[in-house]
Amino acid sequence: MIKQKRVAALAEELTKRDLEAIYLGPSTDLEYIGELDTHPDERVRGLMVTREGKCFALVPLLYKEEMVNAFGDVPIYEEWTDHEGFTDAFRRGCERLGVLGKKIAFNDGVRAVDMLAIRDAMDIKLENGLGVLSPLRARKDAEELELMRKASKMADGVVERLVEFIKPGMKERDIAKVIPDFFEELGADNVSFNPIVASGPNGSMPHYGGDQRVIQPQDIIILDLGGRYKSYCSDTTRTLFVGEPTGEQRKAYEIVRESQMAGEAAVKPGATGQDVDRAARRVIVDAGYGEYFFNRVGHGIGVAVHEDPYMIEGNNAPLEPGNVFSVEPGIYIPGKFGIRIENLVAVKQDGYGEALNKFPREITKVKG
Amino acid sequence: MIKQKRVAALAEELTKRDLEAIYLGPSTDLEYIGELDTHPDERVRGLMVTREGKCFALVPLLYKEEMVNAFGDVPIYEEWTDHEGFTDAFRRGCERLGVLGKKIAFNDGVRAVDMLAIRDAMDIKLENGLGVLSPLRARKDAEELELMRKASKMADGVVERLVEFIKPGMKERDIAKVIPDFFEELGADNVSFNPIVASGPNGSMPHYGGDQRVIQPQDIIILDLGGRYKSYCSDTTRTLFVGEPTGEQRKAYEIVRESQMAGEAAVKPGATGQDVDRAARRVIVDAGYGEYFFNRVGHGIGVAVHEDPYMIEGNNAPLEPGNVFSVEPGIYIPGKFGIRIENLVAVKQDGYGEALNKFPREITKVKG
Repeated sequence: MIKQKRVAALAEELTKRDLEAIYLGPSTDLEYIGELDTHPDERVRGLMVTREGKCFALVPLLYKEEMVNAFGDVPIYEEWTDHEGFTDAFRRGCERLGVLGKKIAFNDGVRAVDMLAIRDAMDIKLENGLGVLSPLRARKDAEELELMRKASKMADGVVERLVEFIKPGMKERDIAKVIPDFFEELGADNVSFNPIVASGPNGSMPHYGGDQRVIQPQDIIILDLGGRYKSYCSDTTRTLFVGEPTGEQRKAYEIVRESQMAGEAAVKPGATGQDVDRAARRVIVDAGYGEYFFNRVGHGIGVAVHEDPYMIEGNNAPLEPGNVFSVEPGIYIPGKFGIRIENLVAVKQDGYGEALNKFPREITKVKG
Repeated sequence: MIKQKRVAALAEELTKRDLEAIYLGPSTDLEYIGELDTHPDERVRGLMVTREGKCFALVPLLYKEEMVNAFGDVPIYEEWTDHEGFTDAFRRGCERLGVLGKKIAFNDGVRAVDMLAIRDAMDIKLENGLGVLSPLRARKDAEELELMRKASKMADGVVERLVEFIKPGMKERDIAKVIPDFFEELGADNVSFNPIVASGPNGSMPHYGGDQRVIQPQDIIILDLGGRYKSYCSDTTRTLFVGEPTGEQRKAYEIVRESQMAGEAAVKPGATGQDVDRAARRVIVDAGYGEYFFNRVGHGIGVAVHEDPYMIEGNNAPLEPGNVFSVEPGIYIPGKFGIRIENLVAVKQDGYGEALNKFPREITKVKG
């Protein structure tokens, strides 16, 4: 169902930003507002919300039943069929809500090509709706936090099982494949992203996308994984050792571990995302590995795996109670190996951090 | 690697359309041109191609290694880091290729929010790039057709296995879960879309997205599935019976079967997508079930599951040799059941159709 309290908060946000309305395509925003969990495609669909809290849903006839199941009877439904195209239905909805000719924001679930088709078919002012819902979404309430604790506990459980499961001779893919099953067995609805299993030199790519390498006896393996539980995501990374770490590997690992802990410790009243980034980064830079750590320290998480607030240089907004984000520094040495440790941290009412992940950060060897 | 022949054909297409350049975000277009198989997200990345066949790649530093692996050394790489944002790098690329101030198309891999950020940061004319590559992609060459035959054979093999596998008492999800494994065992790289397993009344939603219903002894089950083989997709639907069909079910099934065959038979020299739609639809309408068939008869397929040409009222373009598309009429009776049969059809050099799927269309009962 469409969550009326969140629609009301969004309407307020629109007024604050001097926007007449926002059109939400399939996206985590839309899941947050209306429990619709789907992705943008050629069957253009979504929800318009005005600053008065009125809504219309754009519905390809083929999706009518599902969308009514998700949204309930709150919005007006503007239907379109394959042979009509969607722009007429979109205009009808805008007319009914009186937003034609006005400033309408589009969120990140809208494809550029569809927005351009709208631009060419009617008179509205296109505004960038990226992040309009972010302030709402970034402040998790007690119920949301509880869901995220549960999702994180499942992620820890999956890492625990992988320590037993992984053996040299397996392909990365063999490991990646069991992760959704482990999540399901532990109660998750599905995975929150395609898990990363990056072994040996593949670990030097922070967002490695392959899966074909065979695990070798002396490998380091980065496991970056998360599950979804009632729309809320977990996300954790542990770096496991197959054999005994070399001196170089151990040194790098300990630097990353210290860096991760320093990042968590920086979460305190008045701290900003930049403070957390700097605290974690300083440890790595001071140890002489700065050139091997080239990305931000963390990202907010909730209905989306990546959302506000970001732990990054330049983010000077103070952290707020209810924020949840990752702290995940790493060292990535091209062609050699990579190491990353990632916990989620929630900002408590007192401004200090609560780590949602509990799996140990010490050097861990696979048992398989 | 970036396929230079396809870049050259695209450059010609741009000239024909009076466009200076096209920017391709992560999409099947980009996979077709440059073998990059990924999805749009906040790390904005893609490839600009000009009418002179010059390119620059927009690269978040975090993805550099992977993008160079995919594209090779053809394009200029314009890098950006998380704290800089992407618009400066995008402008640098445009300056180098001399396209600032000119008409640049954006394809369906670009998010509206990112295009608006570009609009606000520099002077270019935004054009709708939807379908610019369609004419190239719709004409499959002999090599592409061979890949699609192989992918379709795998899909037939998966249906064959499911006839043995499905048993009353299983959840839809239990069935959906083995489909990727079956595809992998038969040589596919992965599935081309999340398989639909819609049993009993769920079958009345053509794009049913659930998976929790338990299969009952007298169910009808729609299985809609496909795999990808070297970037090319298959897509087939068979409707299986768990027990003996009722008279009503048998009647509806036979109408759909006739309709599907009539659609395939309409593929002949000079025929259009509309002709194929009408031929299949007429059978259902004449049998008095018109109100239960409310979507188009088929879609083109290739690197994407849905692409040109569409079998739909209003598509008056003659089919061309090398076109590949689905013919998938259905009858959907809300709250009761659904029936759909889908084959892929390739247009041969002589203008007639070649069905890529060979699994029988007769009433089939599960053996499990």
